[in-house]
Amino acid sequence: MGEFDLIAKYFSKHKQSSHKDVILSVGDDCAITQIRPEQNIAITTDTLVSGTHFLPTISPSDLAYKSIAVNLSDLAAMGATPMWASLALTLPSIDHDWLSEFSDSLFNILDQYNVSLIGGDTTKGHLSVTITVQGVLEQHQGLFRHKAKSGDFIFVSNYLGDSAAGLDLLLNHSEKVYTQEEKYLIYQHLHPIPQVELGQLLTSYSQCAIDISDGLIADLKHILNRSQCGAEIYIENLPLSLALLSHCEKKEAELFALTGGEDYQLCFTVSANQRNSLEHILKEQGFHCTCIGKITDEINQIKLFDKGNEIMLPHHIGFDHFSK
Amino acid sequence: MGEFDLIAKYFSKHKQSSHKDVILSVGDDCAITQIRPEQNIAITTDTLVSGTHFLPTISPSDLAYKSIAVNLSDLAAMGATPMWASLALTLPSIDHDWLSEFSDSLFNILDQYNVSLIGGDTTKGHLSVTITVQGVLEQHQGLFRHKAKSGDFIFVSNYLGDSAAGLDLLLNHSEKVYTQEEKYLIYQHLHPIPQVELGQLLTSYSQCAIDISDGLIADLKHILNRSQCGAEIYIENLPLSLALLSHCEKKEAELFALTGGEDYQLCFTVSANQRNSLEHILKEQGFHCTCIGKITDEINQIKLFDKGNEIMLPHHIGFDHFSK
Repeated sequence: MGEFDLIAKYFSKHKQSSHKDVILSVGDDCAITQIRPEQNIAITTDTLVSGTHFLPTISPSDLAYKSIAVNLSDLAAMGATPMWASLALTLPSIDHDWLSEFSDSLFNILDQYNVSLIGGDTTKGHLSVTITVQGVLEQHQGLFRHKAKSGDFIFVSNYLGDSAAGLDLLLNHSEKVYTQEEKYLIYQHLHPIPQVELGQLLTSYSQCAIDISDGLIADLKHILNRSQCGAEIYIENLPLSLALLSHCEKKEAELFALTGGEDYQLCFTVSANQRNSLEHILKEQGFHCTCIGKITDEINQIKLFDKGNEIMLPHHIGFDHFSK
Repeated sequence: MGEFDLIAKYFSKHKQSSHKDVILSVGDDCAITQIRPEQNIAITTDTLVSGTHFLPTISPSDLAYKSIAVNLSDLAAMGATPMWASLALTLPSIDHDWLSEFSDSLFNILDQYNVSLIGGDTTKGHLSVTITVQGVLEQHQGLFRHKAKSGDFIFVSNYLGDSAAGLDLLLNHSEKVYTQEEKYLIYQHLHPIPQVELGQLLTSYSQCAIDISDGLIADLKHILNRSQCGAEIYIENLPLSLALLSHCEKKEAELFALTGGEDYQLCFTVSANQRNSLEHILKEQGFHCTCIGKITDEINQIKLFDKGNEIMLPHHIGFDHFSK
């Protein structure tokens, strides 16, 4: 069975609630999508490689979920509405059970976010998944890394550090019988929820966001670098889940929150003028976001405060696929 | 040095003749492109994996060229105008000489086809390259696999079989001192020219094309399957280069032409009504295309004729990454 059959068998027969703007989907040289006036297209690509981005023991279902989720998270951080996905799947061999579970899970999350799979490629080699997702964005809207301004407040969504604590459990305590809280942390690592709706809402109140994939500090640095500004973070405001706090000491939980990767929460800024309106609408619509600091004019400087006292940044922070 | 630095160093500082429709390029969560009314977007993704799609000995320059070329070839087979590319590059380690050569060559071919690199991802792992290229297509135009009709003539561009003969030389005769003709064949394998301009021209005369990546017979089968028709091929009409004919026996050359992959020539169909106008414009504009057969109504049947006598199809034809 060759690559054409794989695409036909696992990735083209699924009845998706198809977008009218998908003119031609899987099965020709290219996919064709229809473009609309007054909108831009946001495009993102992420590769997940076995052993680098996921444990070789991951289930095909979890892998498919996460491959799509991390890309949707990039669209969320832009404020875009997800539309179309392409899949490039490299497999060491053909395992029908594996592919079946992978494709079921893939379509499950795509359907959930109303995204059409429009094409892709399957090849033989070391296991890896590259996804390109495209979304639309109204003209003159969008959340950009270069739009933070001194005086803006810094917010993050939901809780930070859970995913890193979950990964730590999988890596270093795999023999353990996990508690309910530990199972929750592992689930957060395997099933991060891309903050797509939040991102869309934010486009009316904010101009600057990033998704936290490498860790709060590491990702905030991208905003500071692009926006030519600095930041103050108030440690006591970091949103920590009860599960994380029951799993480890508070200091360790804060370190997970500051430096742990793969939470895929949004970190965004809002001006003093807009803060009240934003907090009102967030509450009204049931989004849980927390103000954790402020943008300053000290270029590329991050200062951490614990109840008013400045503390030192730990060394070797952030997460980088090439320096692991 | 981490992945962000790699993108900054090798893939974002290049001064490209940038499209006005690239609103935001490498460096944020997504790239953003502007969409126009009355046009569709054609999107294609191809992965090249070391050892499966290219020899581990390939130069970074040749690899970059070919990664882009095979994707542009898919756009050519659709008749689309290439616009934007994303790169997902997986590397076992960071080698600056390698990356420098790779990125120079990448931008060289992107510039040649006026394509903007708008984003991507670099990761650690077994060497592979996934490219997504997008192009635009006027509404109601395009070359589709499902549009061949009984009675249409089948054409191919330039010469067939050169790339497969070149690969055979690299694989099985690597110790040899190559003749000029053999060097030409190897060059055709490493530097296939995507038939982008030809594809664009064809949209006014044809509705059906595919690019020959897996071999003429294998790719023609996709057209037949999608269009629910058959084909007759006249072996004596196959366009064979002098280099190929000087390198091997005519029968072997014909087999390379029928079954050899990676020529990236276009195979397209044209109705009897349009054939004369098309041949006229092809000649006028200096495109070399040859009529090699005809579409029939015998669903999925390919018949081969050598000067009027039907001959048998060789077994195990075509090229499939999973059956190698």
